[in-house]
Amino acid sequence: MDGNGKETDLEIEAGAGAMIMANDYGRQQDREDNTSEPSSDHFVVVKESFLREPLLLKKNRMNNTSQLAIVGANVCPIESLDYEIIENDLFKQDWRARTKVEIFQYIVLKWALALLIGLSTGLVGFFNNLAVENIAGFKLLLTNSLMLKEKYYQAFAAYAGCNMILAVVAAILCAYIAPAAAGSGIPEVKAYLNGIDAHSILAPSTLFVKIFGSIFGVAAGFVVGKEGPMVHTGACIANLLGQGGSQKYRLTWKWLRFFKNDRDRRDLITCGAAAGVAAAFRAPVGGVLFALEEVASWWRSALLWRTFFTTAVVAVVLRSFMDLCRGGTCGLFGEGGLIMFDVNEANPAYSAPDLLAVVFLGVVGGIFGSLYNYLVDKVLRIYSIINERGPIFKILLVATISLLTSCCSFGLPWLSKCIPCPPNLGDQCPTVGRSGHNKSFQCPPNHYNDLASLFFNTNDDAIRNLFVAGTDKEFNLSTLVIFFIAIYFLGIITYGIAVPSGLFIPVILAGASYGRLAGTLLSPFTVLDVGLFSLLGAASFLGGTMRMTVSICVILLELTNNLLMLPLVMLVLLVSKTVADSFNKGVYDQIVKMKGLPYMEAHAEPYMRHLVASDVVSGPLITFYGIEKVGNIIHALKITGHHGFPVIDEPPVTAAPELFGLVLRSHLLVLLKRKNFTKQKAMTGSTIMRNFKARDFAKPGLGKGLKLEDLDISKEEMEMYVDLHPITNTSPYTVVETMSLAKAAVLFRELGLRHLLVVPKTQARPPIVGILTRHDFMPEHILGLYPHLDPHKQGKEQ
Amino acid sequence: MDGNGKETDLEIEAGAGAMIMANDYGRQQDREDNTSEPSSDHFVVVKESFLREPLLLKKNRMNNTSQLAIVGANVCPIESLDYEIIENDLFKQDWRARTKVEIFQYIVLKWALALLIGLSTGLVGFFNNLAVENIAGFKLLLTNSLMLKEKYYQAFAAYAGCNMILAVVAAILCAYIAPAAAGSGIPEVKAYLNGIDAHSILAPSTLFVKIFGSIFGVAAGFVVGKEGPMVHTGACIANLLGQGGSQKYRLTWKWLRFFKNDRDRRDLITCGAAAGVAAAFRAPVGGVLFALEEVASWWRSALLWRTFFTTAVVAVVLRSFMDLCRGGTCGLFGEGGLIMFDVNEANPAYSAPDLLAVVFLGVVGGIFGSLYNYLVDKVLRIYSIINERGPIFKILLVATISLLTSCCSFGLPWLSKCIPCPPNLGDQCPTVGRSGHNKSFQCPPNHYNDLASLFFNTNDDAIRNLFVAGTDKEFNLSTLVIFFIAIYFLGIITYGIAVPSGLFIPVILAGASYGRLAGTLLSPFTVLDVGLFSLLGAASFLGGTMRMTVSICVILLELTNNLLMLPLVMLVLLVSKTVADSFNKGVYDQIVKMKGLPYMEAHAEPYMRHLVASDVVSGPLITFYGIEKVGNIIHALKITGHHGFPVIDEPPVTAAPELFGLVLRSHLLVLLKRKNFTKQKAMTGSTIMRNFKARDFAKPGLGKGLKLEDLDISKEEMEMYVDLHPITNTSPYTVVETMSLAKAAVLFRELGLRHLLVVPKTQARPPIVGILTRHDFMPEHILGLYPHLDPHKQGKEQ
Repeated sequence: MDGNGKETDLEIEAGAGAMIMANDYGRQQDREDNTSEPSSDHFVVVKESFLREPLLLKKNRMNNTSQLAIVGANVCPIESLDYEIIENDLFKQDWRARTKVEIFQYIVLKWALALLIGLSTGLVGFFNNLAVENIAGFKLLLTNSLMLKEKYYQAFAAYAGCNMILAVVAAILCAYIAPAAAGSGIPEVKAYLNGIDAHSILAPSTLFVKIFGSIFGVAAGFVVGKEGPMVHTGACIANLLGQGGSQKYRLTWKWLRFFKNDRDRRDLITCGAAAGVAAAFRAPVGGVLFALEEVASWWRSALLWRTFFTTAVVAVVLRSFMDLCRGGTCGLFGEGGLIMFDVNEANPAYSAPDLLAVVFLGVVGGIFGSLYNYLVDKVLRIYSIINERGPIFKILLVATISLLTSCCSFGLPWLSKCIPCPPNLGDQCPTVGRSGHNKSFQCPPNHYNDLASLFFNTNDDAIRNLFVAGTDKEFNLSTLVIFFIAIYFLGIITYGIAVPSGLFIPVILAGASYGRLAGTLLSPFTVLDVGLFSLLGAASFLGGTMRMTVSICVILLELTNNLLMLPLVMLVLLVSKTVADSFNKGVYDQIVKMKGLPYMEAHAEPYMRHLVASDVVSGPLITFYGIEKVGNIIHALKITGHHGFPVIDEPPVTAAPELFGLVLRSHLLVLLKRKNFTKQKAMTGSTIMRNFKARDFAKPGLGKGLKLEDLDISKEEMEMYVDLHPITNTSPYTVVETMSLAKAAVLFRELGLRHLLVVPKTQARPPIVGILTRHDFMPEHILGLYPHLDPHKQGKEQ
Repeated sequence: MDGNGKETDLEIEAGAGAMIMANDYGRQQDREDNTSEPSSDHFVVVKESFLREPLLLKKNRMNNTSQLAIVGANVCPIESLDYEIIENDLFKQDWRARTKVEIFQYIVLKWALALLIGLSTGLVGFFNNLAVENIAGFKLLLTNSLMLKEKYYQAFAAYAGCNMILAVVAAILCAYIAPAAAGSGIPEVKAYLNGIDAHSILAPSTLFVKIFGSIFGVAAGFVVGKEGPMVHTGACIANLLGQGGSQKYRLTWKWLRFFKNDRDRRDLITCGAAAGVAAAFRAPVGGVLFALEEVASWWRSALLWRTFFTTAVVAVVLRSFMDLCRGGTCGLFGEGGLIMFDVNEANPAYSAPDLLAVVFLGVVGGIFGSLYNYLVDKVLRIYSIINERGPIFKILLVATISLLTSCCSFGLPWLSKCIPCPPNLGDQCPTVGRSGHNKSFQCPPNHYNDLASLFFNTNDDAIRNLFVAGTDKEFNLSTLVIFFIAIYFLGIITYGIAVPSGLFIPVILAGASYGRLAGTLLSPFTVLDVGLFSLLGAASFLGGTMRMTVSICVILLELTNNLLMLPLVMLVLLVSKTVADSFNKGVYDQIVKMKGLPYMEAHAEPYMRHLVASDVVSGPLITFYGIEKVGNIIHALKITGHHGFPVIDEPPVTAAPELFGLVLRSHLLVLLKRKNFTKQKAMTGSTIMRNFKARDFAKPGLGKGLKLEDLDISKEEMEMYVDLHPITNTSPYTVVETMSLAKAAVLFRELGLRHLLVVPKTQARPPIVGILTRHDFMPEHILGLYPHLDPHKQGKEQ
């Protein structure tokens, strides 16, 4: 590197594509040239260890890095989160000045926010149920009354019409207001908690659409659940509360400055996700475990404790409101509003053949579950082509699926024969109200249609009917077969349309009907009740699609309130997950991957052990001096999309060139905005420390910070200098360039980093080799650089 | 550093205290002298940032480091575990050669071991219960029969005699065979999973004593539980199975070589700990959560899944054996053998005053809980003085406590008046068998002694009696007061004697009696049942002492099989934990600290932000060259107790001195043992790679590896050279010396390291500054160096 710092004139242009050869990049270029000797040395080492074509590789690599630079300059809707503590001088000053009162404020607020998240999510969960039960109940009562009058065509028109209107409203909300609200939302929340901030995924508009879209979608009779959307809703609520409400409407609050960083936001959103599950299933412990097992990527004991508090609040809120509604003051919202499938089985006795039957159930459930994932993936790919064509196409797709669902629900029950009511039920058969076991549908008095009891009901009620014990004869075998096939495929084709749609309920429905079917078929070999089989079938499908274990187990136990079937549920989950894992990934992981979100797995991939950190760093690396020319900074910010830049100190500031730290783009923008510039190179750190507070650099939400366009720098100012030392993180995590990539990946993932600095091994080199970001650890990137490491291709070659 | 490597003659002496100034240390000394300039520079930086007396500090620091070096040379019974993957050439060779069959073997074995751990722990858990129920049952029946004959003195003699014999046997086992088996064992397992391998904590002898000592201890009527010991037992079993049995008896197996590292051992032992809880409480989900929340320091999703499998196996084993025993073939072992407190409460209805009562219960429970911790700590300190005086004193202490316990159990019931049997109980009052609610004790026919029903029973039965619902009048207020006070203090003075003793049961007992007492007192204000109050009281005490939340909640739910009381249990746990946390730490953390185990907390202490990595590195640092003289290595191994040494390459091997990696003491010993030496400095890497396999360097259990004394190196060989490159970990984790100590601590803890290398910031310095180990992050060490940072002292000064 040239120590004299040959600062040439610099002209800032819009669309500076051609500028890449100018000052900064030129400096970088020099450095690369200077270091070509050690670099090739390094390649010799790599070659010795395993590479076959080092020269070709090097070429490939250079190409790729320049491509990356161009990609990086584009506006990217996905941004990585940074869980590292940015220890710059301002932070340290602020941290030292922090009083006991402020620490107390922070702790109080942390718990107050957890309380608020619990309260709000509980409220929304209750409201969601209340609305769904009332809308769907009204729809079913209307249709039922027409059916009783034998006006079948009008009944269908009313039924399908209601469904269509609700579906289209949900689709319009989704397509025009918040496209991010479509789907389950769990993959997005999972990705967020892994460190990926996708555009508007937790925005207030998304929250609004998620709540109302989910209500309309579920009420429209789609085979969708409200569980996934509730998780997303909980996360949105947490995000909104953590910001003190929407910034647009200026509700932010001074105390909340403590939470303006990615770490605290992560904690809040984890609480929110857990609260969502707790509200959806009325399962507080299950909610905590779900957040722990499926959603969160980082976890610590303190968080367990706070999440637990949040879900406890949710449970109390739900219970209080349900007590309020017990008097019948909530319209059609009855006891069954929130799912709680009371199987009421006594101690289930079982022996070896029963266990065999359960294992068999698990194996087949695992196969069906992984097939479900496979088909959902295919359908999503087709739908994404349709959905990309515009909002109108989205709405048309929703309308089509709604019509198809209505036809199935209304049409298929005609295939079933009317069954005479069993005498012991008395008045309960056929059911008069909107829910219940024995729907009369087209049947004469004192008869019921068993298929209608499943189809012509809300999803929750259908599950309840399937789970119930001691009713071996209630459903015909053919009924269960028809229902299972219909629901299995309806569930698959419904996920992916532009409506908030959870996967839990479709999977539980399909699994419960499969379980009941299997139980009926296996009844000669086992003494277990078909209702219990239905529950185990649901568990097997959940294990086969979502691949969770402990949390599903606890959620099912909390749903059914029977701990004694625990060993059986555990067994079936273990079997089905093991079977399904041998075919493909869990459905949420699959969706995360399909959406192209750069999810970091907890473990390093095996091929990473063949590489070292410097093999994958993407360039060109742009560095700043401790006291840098304003123009250089502006230029660098303009030509790249990078978010972190190493800061180098050179003589005369230090004896030799050395790495001072890492400065963030967002911090640079804040610093430049206030124009603390000097004509000469000078240490103005103390001035800056006086003029700024650490909170000025607090991280705003995605897309809300300062932008380069917000700066107004004159041509003279471009020639001035600014001292970057006070805002530079002096403790960035570093790895030596020869560090195994696998170990660097573990470091990156475990500490939740955004930038990992790669420093040189030998001393004769400039003090920084490059920066590793999330992107550099992605299989696509690594295997793009080193295609021969691809395990799939290797298999084919051999 | 002198590049010429002035190798002087070296004489190896026994007790080389004076040798510290010889070759290696001399080299180190040179380096320190050479680097004094940048070092003082560095101190200026520190001074600028916050230090008041840098000179004094520096002096202090030098003293301290030399002291440390001497301490390090002593034999230390505690060793840190290393969860880092040691990526040296041999590992890489082995890793690349790994076939698909081997990977499959590994996965199969992992699950097979989980299965075996589950089976064995389940078996041991059942055996434990069977033995306790039979021994204690026999003792109680014998005493009862004497009581019925009104031979009160003989009855007392029989009762106290049985207790004394059992207690002394347990104490002899503990004192002479395995002192590590005394106490709960949970703190030790927790420390192990944090990375601290204390002497013989998981040895086969410990396992043996833990199983039988726990049986005798519980049967001897001590106020101790079998839960902690079961956790320890599970961990011991897992360790033993992971080694393929005891090495002494040569049961080790080829396949198990995959598990000869600290990472896989950690996973197995986590499974074992979870299995222990599951076996003790018959609570499989609770077991997993307990392991997650309290015991494990590192966790990942894959482990959740395997732990869950293990506890499911435990549940199935226990259930099968209990089914076997249902016919009465297991002697006095009845249905109640394994704790399962069926409260059988229907939906508990509650309103605002009830919630207030529960909050009050939680507050007082939290205070009592933290007081319990405080008193246990004090008692443990007194007992450790007694216990240190020798095994005889240990046994005498056990005998004293046993006599005291017998006196209490037998004597206190005389304070209670006889209560006439309620007519509705019929034949059930007074109880004839060994367990039951209404013990007759000294009372006339058709009367019972309510205090005897609690005291004169096994602990499990006493808890069951307290938890039972709908029996408001069964116990007098005075009875509950006496029992609560007696059990509270007996529990405190019993923990710490030389007998395996769990803390769960004493705490649950005290909490349950407190809860019942509170429930009786609060009955005018609340409609909640006293049995439910008893359960909530137990929860409040558990929350107040152990500070777990989710796992206690789930364990209690699994024990009582009533999910509907979940919100109340959550509430009381939250309140009591919050209250207790404001007084002191959890009981297990307290014991870990008292035992001096260097436990690494998950978060960094605030004062660490004031320091940088180089402020705490302990020296003198001993480094090796890539090709090193055998004598130097032997000397270094002799004069220090360090387990890792940086390896430096110098010209002509490299252009400039550079850090090649880190070599471990254990690996050096293996290498030296085979004597692959050369007369001249030469790269003999390929020879070594041929002669060794990676498995030769697999980590044996603590204290089982090669020792320096096992080497037999002649005087000529001392002058020869050995190539350390193939066994050097080329990817050690590093931090720059100016890295904030807090961030270095997070890195160290999150990645589970044993050595963290500190590299210099400037290039004019030798390539390594020092090594951070667990010791360097301990508050004692840091605050010893920088006493003015001590938050307690600061408070006093101001």
